[in-house]
Amino acid sequence: MSDHKYMQMALAQAELAAQAGEVPVGAVLVLRNGRLFASHNAPISLHDASAHAEMRVIRNACAATGNYRLTDSTLYVTLEPCAMCAGAIIHARIKRVVYAADDPKTGAVTSLYQLLSDKRLNHQPEITGGVLAETAGALLKQFFRERRKRGKAQ
Amino acid sequence: MSDHKYMQMALAQAELAAQAGEVPVGAVLVLRNGRLFASHNAPISLHDASAHAEMRVIRNACAATGNYRLTDSTLYVTLEPCAMCAGAIIHARIKRVVYAADDPKTGAVTSLYQLLSDKRLNHQPEITGGVLAETAGALLKQFFRERRKRGKAQ
Repeated sequence: MSDHKYMQMALAQAELAAQAGEVPVGAVLVLRNGRLFASHNAPISLHDASAHAEMRVIRNACAATGNYRLTDSTLYVTLEPCAMCAGAIIHARIKRVVYAADDPKTGAVTSLYQLLSDKRLNHQPEITGGVLAETAGALLKQFFRERRKRGKAQ
Repeated sequence: MSDHKYMQMALAQAELAAQAGEVPVGAVLVLRNGRLFASHNAPISLHDASAHAEMRVIRNACAATGNYRLTDSTLYVTLEPCAMCAGAIIHARIKRVVYAADDPKTGAVTSLYQLLSDKRLNHQPEITGGVLAETAGALLKQFFRERRKRGKAQ
């Protein structure tokens, strides 16, 4: 499958997050053998500050493979990873990271920090940004616009 | 209890990690009401790249309180948090972070990055470094020395 197809799956996860009242971010992790894990952002409903979409697919894939490293895997995520998720991506030795929209507020791949390109850390994944960025960005904008509306109505 | 007492508990967790063959780092999280969570680093045995000591106490405390934020809590950890853990500390809104040894290789509080003091991010915890740093550092040094010895013997 192409990057676009996997990112569309991640976007479908992001829509599930929005429906659950969570900030709409989705992720898909694909292992070397084609095995696939998909999750969405869910810190509020899971009572877990660390339950970003990326962390969930990483943890699920580690548990399923019985390995704390995910060498040769590719992570698709609809928003530029934050510092927490970028750190986990490095710890898990993920080979390639593909993301959609930039996150100027907390992004740690290009926006605020460039953690995944930092040669002082012991792994540098390949990075592709901007895949289906407009769709991912529109979903986020719509979510926050509706949340503000609801906030005013209450 | 004093910072020293809580850090001694975190050090006891770090020793448990070493006994399990994991890099010896321990953490204790104390909530406002005095409720306490203690864990050690365990990515290999838990098959979870994200299972650093700090992540485990944050996740356990979130699950136990049914809240993805841990306002007014204090985190004690025997090693300067990495970017992943510093990110989770910010997401969980932890009030104060006390750590022992600096981590010049991956530390994200003072060494490589200063994530917890970054005013662009939406939370800045209080930071105290260096509490029982020598004991924590000695434990780490001993662990890596013994691991190198075993590596040579094999």
